[in-house]
Amino acid sequence: MTIQASLPSGFRDIDTEAFLQRKYITNILEQIFIDHNFQPLETPAMERLTTLLGKYGEEGDQLIFKVLNSRELTSANQEGNEIAKKGLRYDLTVPLARYIAQNKNAIVFPFKRYQIQPVWRAERAQKGRYREFYQCDIDIVGSDSLFHEASLLSLVYEALKLLGLSDFTIHLNHRALLSAIAEDINMQTNETVLYQILDKEDKIGIEGVCDLLREKGVSNTSIHRLKMLLVNNETDKNDPKALLVHLNTPLAQKAIGDLQEITNYITMLQPDALSSIQFTPVLARGISYYTGAIFEVKIPNTGIGSIVGGGRYDKLTNIFGLNDVSGVGLSFGLERIYDILKMRSLLPNSFHSIQILVVPMEKKHEKTAIQHVVNCRKQKIATEFYPAGSRMKKIFSYAHQKKIPWVAVIGDKEMALSMISLKNMHTGEQKLCTFAMVVQLISSVIKNL
Amino acid sequence: MTIQASLPSGFRDIDTEAFLQRKYITNILEQIFIDHNFQPLETPAMERLTTLLGKYGEEGDQLIFKVLNSRELTSANQEGNEIAKKGLRYDLTVPLARYIAQNKNAIVFPFKRYQIQPVWRAERAQKGRYREFYQCDIDIVGSDSLFHEASLLSLVYEALKLLGLSDFTIHLNHRALLSAIAEDINMQTNETVLYQILDKEDKIGIEGVCDLLREKGVSNTSIHRLKMLLVNNETDKNDPKALLVHLNTPLAQKAIGDLQEITNYITMLQPDALSSIQFTPVLARGISYYTGAIFEVKIPNTGIGSIVGGGRYDKLTNIFGLNDVSGVGLSFGLERIYDILKMRSLLPNSFHSIQILVVPMEKKHEKTAIQHVVNCRKQKIATEFYPAGSRMKKIFSYAHQKKIPWVAVIGDKEMALSMISLKNMHTGEQKLCTFAMVVQLISSVIKNL
Repeated sequence: MTIQASLPSGFRDIDTEAFLQRKYITNILEQIFIDHNFQPLETPAMERLTTLLGKYGEEGDQLIFKVLNSRELTSANQEGNEIAKKGLRYDLTVPLARYIAQNKNAIVFPFKRYQIQPVWRAERAQKGRYREFYQCDIDIVGSDSLFHEASLLSLVYEALKLLGLSDFTIHLNHRALLSAIAEDINMQTNETVLYQILDKEDKIGIEGVCDLLREKGVSNTSIHRLKMLLVNNETDKNDPKALLVHLNTPLAQKAIGDLQEITNYITMLQPDALSSIQFTPVLARGISYYTGAIFEVKIPNTGIGSIVGGGRYDKLTNIFGLNDVSGVGLSFGLERIYDILKMRSLLPNSFHSIQILVVPMEKKHEKTAIQHVVNCRKQKIATEFYPAGSRMKKIFSYAHQKKIPWVAVIGDKEMALSMISLKNMHTGEQKLCTFAMVVQLISSVIKNL
Repeated sequence: MTIQASLPSGFRDIDTEAFLQRKYITNILEQIFIDHNFQPLETPAMERLTTLLGKYGEEGDQLIFKVLNSRELTSANQEGNEIAKKGLRYDLTVPLARYIAQNKNAIVFPFKRYQIQPVWRAERAQKGRYREFYQCDIDIVGSDSLFHEASLLSLVYEALKLLGLSDFTIHLNHRALLSAIAEDINMQTNETVLYQILDKEDKIGIEGVCDLLREKGVSNTSIHRLKMLLVNNETDKNDPKALLVHLNTPLAQKAIGDLQEITNYITMLQPDALSSIQFTPVLARGISYYTGAIFEVKIPNTGIGSIVGGGRYDKLTNIFGLNDVSGVGLSFGLERIYDILKMRSLLPNSFHSIQILVVPMEKKHEKTAIQHVVNCRKQKIATEFYPAGSRMKKIFSYAHQKKIPWVAVIGDKEMALSMISLKNMHTGEQKLCTFAMVVQLISSVIKNL
């Protein structure tokens, strides 16, 4: 029986070109993270389901992949689905909270960690949306200074500039402001529903949001008021204070004060970033655990959603028995950044290759050819050997496709003369050389790179 | 309700120290892989179960983690366990075979790829054995030249030497030799059982192997003969030819011929490696797909199993409809190499740190302090800011634990004088400096590193 060679839908391989281009992005991010004193962490792919569930909203819970081992699966029929006790991580923030609670006595706070790992979500598969994707996260946990929000946004600005992007917008909002609005329109008992519906605004528009709220039984008066507060605000859009005219509650004051302090810090730290930051009261983010400032980075007219998202969470470790540890963090979405850089030809496409391929004409020439390989490597020349037995045409095609610049051929003539036939794959020129000449030629080219 | 902050058994976090030390190992391996013209590939965590099952022997199949999404899980009760269609990869070789069959028209053969990714096995959890671990694989697919076996073993030798190891043994055997033995003792129809039992030899000894074979109904005559061929061979242990005296069949001749040719190639390529290579007729490897030479690297007296394992597989892509593509590859086990290097203090423990922590005494000093942060960063000094509001004792303790060499404090006095109080965390010395002096001091230290 033949099995079809294919992947489950929503999954894909990362081939050499994509791997190197993705690595170009993560190397830039990782270096900035390190320069800003974030330290690396990796957590396992699997977490207990109790750790994962209830952190991402009801829809999020549905998207968690459950994992069974064979014995568990066999008994699943009898015992129902409580048998699944493990799930694949959905993001890198909840595992971080679990890690911090678990290691609270060993950690020096504020704890600044970076983490670059894949996450898994059982989304409906569609073009450009994958069920496995990489997040590049930074978080600062154990300090409630709003300086950290500013430093994160300043880092985002710096990173995206280094990647060659400039037309991005950093959308900024505050969960306390949305709470104040929820209170105002009598949705304080189901804020999470409001956030998850608002989170769809960039796809379905404000009217779509209103329709969904109506379906949930929210009154027309409330919906009208919501629209007025969020989008019909006539005053300066980038000045959160304007909202206080309509909504002067303690929660709203707290939110507006925080946003102003964050802006002040950015003015001190990275004033250039200010022109990329926009107060966006409709920004909600779908994830349950945020409590303070929230932010998302988008690039207009790309058809691609947010490339960075994050915010402050005051109580994420509480569920693990660790109170009063506030954190703030964000996540760069590798796939979306990759898609945009690719679209704009901002990715390098230079490939590493070895310098020389050494080819014996026949089996009897192998020993001499391998001696040349050994000697080239001693001279720090990256060298590969192609065993005898294939046609020369195939071998030169291999060298061409692998972009190997030099091919050395060893046959009877070469052995008799103690020479090598060296072909320059760029010019097609071929000449007899001594080994010393080969080394000199290639070394001089390497030096000039 | 409080949830216990813990991981499923068999899983663990990789903290900063372990992360950096593991990266030290993978960086060395990756550089050697690149120098030898292997190109990177990543495959997704999940594969179709049809891709995974039947490749690792019956025991291996039991160890594959099955993955369900929520909808599938809900219906699992009704439909039985066929509902699980995906599994987590068990190794990196089967995904490679699937990838090659899927992309056969785009791939240039021989295809040399490296892949460094975690794999998952539902082993019984025990100390030092994890259910998630990293494999660092290299494979050469699409050539049956035995030069590739030699080049892989030579690369292993080079890599382990670079990691500081020298007392390792590369055990070498051939599946055709084991097949010849299976034929000889009438086990040709259940060779896989023989391999899986032999694979336990290093844990249970040859007598344990005999007991297990007896349980499987193998006759005492066969068992006696097996022992004679594998371990009671009086002739030179490192000369496979000696076995031909007792077992002169075409299969055995083929195996012995291959092993000799591999040894010849190693003599040409890396003669130093020969003293580390040992012909080990009892070596079987548990995995079903090998057909040719097989090898494992062990370090005696460590209590740790093989740190590298691999072999040739002639028919792995056949099941995916791609015939006549022979491959050979091996896998470095990151965790076991890490354990051994750690045990022997062969891991670096120097940590990257930022150079300077800038600390305002009070909120009103933040603006000036942040200005210093910005200026330091302009001078390419890795700098961090500590917001006002914590006690100085806590801040110095933070700097100490994070191994930050310099702390700059800004208070009323410093602002009045336009100076900075700079503390050297190594000597404890503190003095008033201008910003220019701070830059000069730190830059000179960085230069001398």
